[in-house]
Amino acid sequence: MDQKQGILYGVGVGPGDPELLTVKAVRVIREADVVAAPNTGTSRAALDIVQDYIAGKPILDCPSPMHRDRAAAKAAYARTAEDICALLERGKTVAMLTLGDPTVYSTYMYVHRLVEEKGYEARVIPGVPSFCAAAAALGTPLCEGKERLLIIPAGYEGLEESLDVEANKVLMKAGRSITELQDLLRRRGELDRASLAANCGMEGETLYPHFADMDDPTGYFSIVIVRDKD
Amino acid sequence: MDQKQGILYGVGVGPGDPELLTVKAVRVIREADVVAAPNTGTSRAALDIVQDYIAGKPILDCPSPMHRDRAAAKAAYARTAEDICALLERGKTVAMLTLGDPTVYSTYMYVHRLVEEKGYEARVIPGVPSFCAAAAALGTPLCEGKERLLIIPAGYEGLEESLDVEANKVLMKAGRSITELQDLLRRRGELDRASLAANCGMEGETLYPHFADMDDPTGYFSIVIVRDKD
Repeated sequence: MDQKQGILYGVGVGPGDPELLTVKAVRVIREADVVAAPNTGTSRAALDIVQDYIAGKPILDCPSPMHRDRAAAKAAYARTAEDICALLERGKTVAMLTLGDPTVYSTYMYVHRLVEEKGYEARVIPGVPSFCAAAAALGTPLCEGKERLLIIPAGYEGLEESLDVEANKVLMKAGRSITELQDLLRRRGELDRASLAANCGMEGETLYPHFADMDDPTGYFSIVIVRDKD
Repeated sequence: MDQKQGILYGVGVGPGDPELLTVKAVRVIREADVVAAPNTGTSRAALDIVQDYIAGKPILDCPSPMHRDRAAAKAAYARTAEDICALLERGKTVAMLTLGDPTVYSTYMYVHRLVEEKGYEARVIPGVPSFCAAAAALGTPLCEGKERLLIIPAGYEGLEESLDVEANKVLMKAGRSITELQDLLRRRGELDRASLAANCGMEGETLYPHFADMDDPTGYFSIVIVRDKD
């Protein structure tokens, strides 16, 4: 039997609110034969978001270790890519979920490349990035007119140098280091221009239009926005 | 009569494809009493995108001049804010449309602030920014791992200095200057790391995974992605 190969869709499910999936993301998930869901070992956050859209659909569990052992992580993604290719070979359509947008700090693109290299078709369905949802919840623009915007990944290597760049800044996933970040911005005289959204669109959402007002460390999914000097 | 005031929603309608509105954006537009639509004089692009969702709904036309006379533009936004406040005062819910995401280079936030200053409630519904849709269409990540991402607005003042920042870059709305940009990136040895999406998700979408291959100037809504040195 000459069976048509399936297609892999990398689907951005947005920042947390199930209503912030796009119409296209919902359709692609509903039409998929299998939903592939990253699993950090303790949570499947993307899967939780789409529960209302996947009743009864088979789930492919995709181990997605968050620790810093890059070789182990790459091996896990390679196994996921193999599992997905086996489904595509059997003509199945696979929707792999990813938080926010698939092109912004997502491991999905790693799997995407592996699947393409094996000769299968893979398509990206964009989503609302977490920083857009944070700015929306705070009611603050990320960038206007001639302002540039710098997105700084979690970990913050060389953070002072990043903060020196003339631009508005988004600091992704401020977590354990949130009070240190507050201290640093205070020392630099930038704390008054900073705001914070914790667990945006999820349970325990907390908004600080003035980051200076935050007096308890917040969750993993905090986003800090620092406006540039006027 | 003691009437409850209405609420203004700034609704991101995404980059062009009507399927790339969020479920929430569609609901808010459908539930609104009035849809406010920016009008540049020659186009109402955001309104075109949502045609399927607004059958029969009253439209508030919002002149949104694109020329560089900032005083004239501000006066136009102030009139829009006044028109919207008059509706809110009568208890109407207003959904003001904006391309992409409302917090990313949108004039919506200007109207949002004016409406809040007049004592009315305004909420932002995030959307898929054009650069996420461009990266998705090109199948390229915007940022991975420890990479930073710099968003550079149209106009490109101080462009060389922006390109010197150690980060992946998004150049918004490359238009008339697209061949000059190609020349500049070639001179800097960065053209091989650049890709371009023109009219993404709209009629006339054209993708150049290799910006070097582009041999005719493209439309206003072009987005260029330049990956940083490895």
